[in-house]
Amino acid sequence: MAKLVLIRHGQSEWNLQNRFTGWVDVKLTDEGVAQARKAGTLLAETGFAPERAFTSVLTRAVRTLWLTLEEMDRVWIPVEKSWRLNERHYGGLTGLDKQEIRERHGDAQVQIWRRSFDTPPPALDLDDERHPSHDPRYKDLSPDQLPAAESLELTLNRVQPYWESTIAPLLEAGEDVLVVAHGNSLRAIVKLLFDMNDADIVQIEIPTGNPLEIGLDGAGKMPVTARYLDTERAQPLPEIP
Amino acid sequence: MAKLVLIRHGQSEWNLQNRFTGWVDVKLTDEGVAQARKAGTLLAETGFAPERAFTSVLTRAVRTLWLTLEEMDRVWIPVEKSWRLNERHYGGLTGLDKQEIRERHGDAQVQIWRRSFDTPPPALDLDDERHPSHDPRYKDLSPDQLPAAESLELTLNRVQPYWESTIAPLLEAGEDVLVVAHGNSLRAIVKLLFDMNDADIVQIEIPTGNPLEIGLDGAGKMPVTARYLDTERAQPLPEIP
Repeated sequence: MAKLVLIRHGQSEWNLQNRFTGWVDVKLTDEGVAQARKAGTLLAETGFAPERAFTSVLTRAVRTLWLTLEEMDRVWIPVEKSWRLNERHYGGLTGLDKQEIRERHGDAQVQIWRRSFDTPPPALDLDDERHPSHDPRYKDLSPDQLPAAESLELTLNRVQPYWESTIAPLLEAGEDVLVVAHGNSLRAIVKLLFDMNDADIVQIEIPTGNPLEIGLDGAGKMPVTARYLDTERAQPLPEIP
Repeated sequence: MAKLVLIRHGQSEWNLQNRFTGWVDVKLTDEGVAQARKAGTLLAETGFAPERAFTSVLTRAVRTLWLTLEEMDRVWIPVEKSWRLNERHYGGLTGLDKQEIRERHGDAQVQIWRRSFDTPPPALDLDDERHPSHDPRYKDLSPDQLPAAESLELTLNRVQPYWESTIAPLLEAGEDVLVVAHGNSLRAIVKLLFDMNDADIVQIEIPTGNPLEIGLDGAGKMPVTARYLDTERAQPLPEIP
């Protein structure tokens, strides 16, 4: 049975400050580093030994993966980084304080931006410095691949081709795989894997730095077990279909 | 002008204990971690911004690269790890104390093993636990690719195809490249790049964690400048051909 482990990056500086982060490249806090190391220790204890790992091109996810692999004594496995595993792009909300936005736009609007499946926040202008076209790490992407704001649905739309072409086939071949990414790119994967509807997926909250271990059946397509390894910081799990 | 930066991993536990390490997966010391971070700081100060990086599958090199990239704020660039960049395999000397071997085999013999270009140390038996066939990270290699003992020449023979197929073409295309590896796999690259003879290359001693910055001419094939960035810990440089 192939195992897939999903880890949301450890606590970041802006998680702590309660700001919309998205594609801004903030760092892990000391607590986030500790969470990542603990994730690695917990995984090593279960004997999880993935052949390869995937992460985004955002520092908080890459470092979480590296710290996890250090604790697992597997820093030597191949790691692939893709912008497709990045956090949802929060567009015009990027960098803003969540409380401030609530005061300005009202709780109802913020709740829609945060929790609706298909409503994107206000889009960024191309010349806004927060637009990804100004970041050298995206210089090889075509302009229509670069988001100016994403709903969870738009996030899923760009995670899905990567999931289907690159990660899912490994699981179907029986390989164990580790993915370290973000709250919403992991929601996209969970929605695809557990075949969840739009209303249910927005209720799933993956805690930072807590490995979500998913066992897949023989053909590697169907989740048959799911658990968080750090049981004290667990959240409700997606239902096994 | 493309730039190539070569870094030998920071000080390892066995550098400190003066034991032959080779393919044994020892860790960095605190001093080695500090050297790696300093290498990254020095590189960031020069404005070096490589598009991608290469390293071996040995933990001390991988971690040196990661720490360097952290200081450069470039953890997001693609990293490729290859066994072909591993340290020379010391065969039957692996794990032994250098002083002990001197007492047992005499200074002259040890000097030959350490500094001749083409004399390998005694080969390991296949059932010796130090033989790479017992390490899962080499499970996809064919038996004839796995060394039981290497001279510098044999090390060069397995570095060269990787250098020529994977790294050199990037430099020839004008890309900046970072390679973090080991004393002898880096000697192999330096010998190829600077067109050095067998006697001269064994005299080159690359210090741990000290970036060797090499400027290459327009076609990316010819070194035209070479310097160590940590000038206090520099060693004699290869001659510009």
